[in-house]
Amino acid sequence: MSGAPDPPDGGYPEHLRTLVERYLESLDFAAQGLRAELAEAMRYSLLAGGKRIRPVLTLAVAESCGRPPESMLPTAAAFELIHTYSLIHDDLPAIDDDDLRRGRPTCHVVYGEDVAILAGDGLFAEAFSLVLDRQEAAASTLVHVLGEIARATGLGGMVGGQYMDIVSTRAVDVDLRTMHELKTGRLIEAAVVCGALLCGAREAAVEEYRAFAAELGLLFQIVDDILDVVGDSESLGKTAGKDAQAAKLTYVSRHGLAGARDLARQAHRRSRELLDRLPGDGSSLAAVADYILDRES
Amino acid sequence: MSGAPDPPDGGYPEHLRTLVERYLESLDFAAQGLRAELAEAMRYSLLAGGKRIRPVLTLAVAESCGRPPESMLPTAAAFELIHTYSLIHDDLPAIDDDDLRRGRPTCHVVYGEDVAILAGDGLFAEAFSLVLDRQEAAASTLVHVLGEIARATGLGGMVGGQYMDIVSTRAVDVDLRTMHELKTGRLIEAAVVCGALLCGAREAAVEEYRAFAAELGLLFQIVDDILDVVGDSESLGKTAGKDAQAAKLTYVSRHGLAGARDLARQAHRRSRELLDRLPGDGSSLAAVADYILDRES
Repeated sequence: MSGAPDPPDGGYPEHLRTLVERYLESLDFAAQGLRAELAEAMRYSLLAGGKRIRPVLTLAVAESCGRPPESMLPTAAAFELIHTYSLIHDDLPAIDDDDLRRGRPTCHVVYGEDVAILAGDGLFAEAFSLVLDRQEAAASTLVHVLGEIARATGLGGMVGGQYMDIVSTRAVDVDLRTMHELKTGRLIEAAVVCGALLCGAREAAVEEYRAFAAELGLLFQIVDDILDVVGDSESLGKTAGKDAQAAKLTYVSRHGLAGARDLARQAHRRSRELLDRLPGDGSSLAAVADYILDRES
Repeated sequence: MSGAPDPPDGGYPEHLRTLVERYLESLDFAAQGLRAELAEAMRYSLLAGGKRIRPVLTLAVAESCGRPPESMLPTAAAFELIHTYSLIHDDLPAIDDDDLRRGRPTCHVVYGEDVAILAGDGLFAEAFSLVLDRQEAAASTLVHVLGEIARATGLGGMVGGQYMDIVSTRAVDVDLRTMHELKTGRLIEAAVVCGALLCGAREAAVEEYRAFAAELGLLFQIVDDILDVVGDSESLGKTAGKDAQAAKLTYVSRHGLAGARDLARQAHRRSRELLDRLPGDGSSLAAVADYILDRES
């Protein structure tokens, strides 16, 4: 990929993040009466900021294939709804018991555990509705997009990875790479792949996007583990040092800090190499990969 | 509807329930390694028995339009996965705090709260995968089916109704009929409507099936409230008297036992009248309506 102007100062594609942010703010989930309060809890967690990496990736793929990013906003936003749902449930007292997320009290701290469970459930359902009701695409494309999302969120994806994460604290021998691929990688992968599907990419091209995204997901998790050790709670916006405290299996606990940093650089290099083989303007995708390597929160 | 043989002794369509039961038993969620334990928790709740009203309704619609019921098993089963997911989450200590369901300890009692939350999440995702990966139908039909499911489970459906149920215990004035329509009715409605969509029914016919199903959903909930008062825990398979204990708004608390029974008979009569206007063999659908009125658990 070459020939297109880099995003402003070569940094994170803020123009895409702005699109995502405005779209997310516009969602009220058509909740009337009492249910508006549940929608408020969902919006509390959804609009807590963050880099919006998953939806930005979907829109960056749109750019790479010359489609207007706006045309993929419903699907892009669906990934942020799903990511937020997973954070709300992960933070629950029965799972990670986290009080702080993105610098604010977590959903269950503000609204209670019962509402937080339902807010997560609601975000997941509304994510599917967003794609089904608002994404313009051929029915056959929508079916592929939804299949990708369902697989990325089920036992072979996010929920399966979260389960492995839970049992990894119980002195069970868990394969670290598989756990992270499922818990974090599959959703990042799906965000990229669904962009490619909405571009009308052929199967071989879709698989090239998938390979790029798989490296990105790996990179993301390694850096996450590093930040849990070297970051502070203030800049992370969540409680630092939780992993060590919970004796969780991480890339740092297994490979040491220097080893983890080396693995991160390798994953970043592979992702950029895979990106170079893809057609179109990959500048925003490259900028996201660079951001994921260098991020400090 | 007429002309077809009644199901054996005019009772519940056990031949359809048997199909559902066998299909549900065949699901292993392709979970490998550690995740097989999460699949086990999902199967524990999924295979706890019950009349399988929702999937049986989908298959009964298939019969009514002359399609092989087997052809709709993936979608039918998806409704049981979703129903089970909602029960697991509703039973959690933070929501209804129920220890007993279908005569067995609830999912979180056996597997822990963390696993129960994920088992619910996993069932929801796998329900979508079932339809997407296994239901044979035109892509445009699948999109309609999935849209129906997503709407029935989001804020305008199950999750919204569950939220209203939670706040109804906090002395907030909740519209009883809306709450039940959302919490219970919309999923029963979707189970019928998706059958009609898979039959290739035209929009007007789909709406006739929907009207029938709406009465069925109402009937179901009124009888549920009556059984909570007159039933005993043993035959219900769940803790009786929970509603009164939690000062929950129910048809019995608002209309008295005799009034609620009268409302149930009215809803049943309307459902049978609507069914009579539909084409095809409605004997299994009628048998389900009769069962819902007369059930004792």
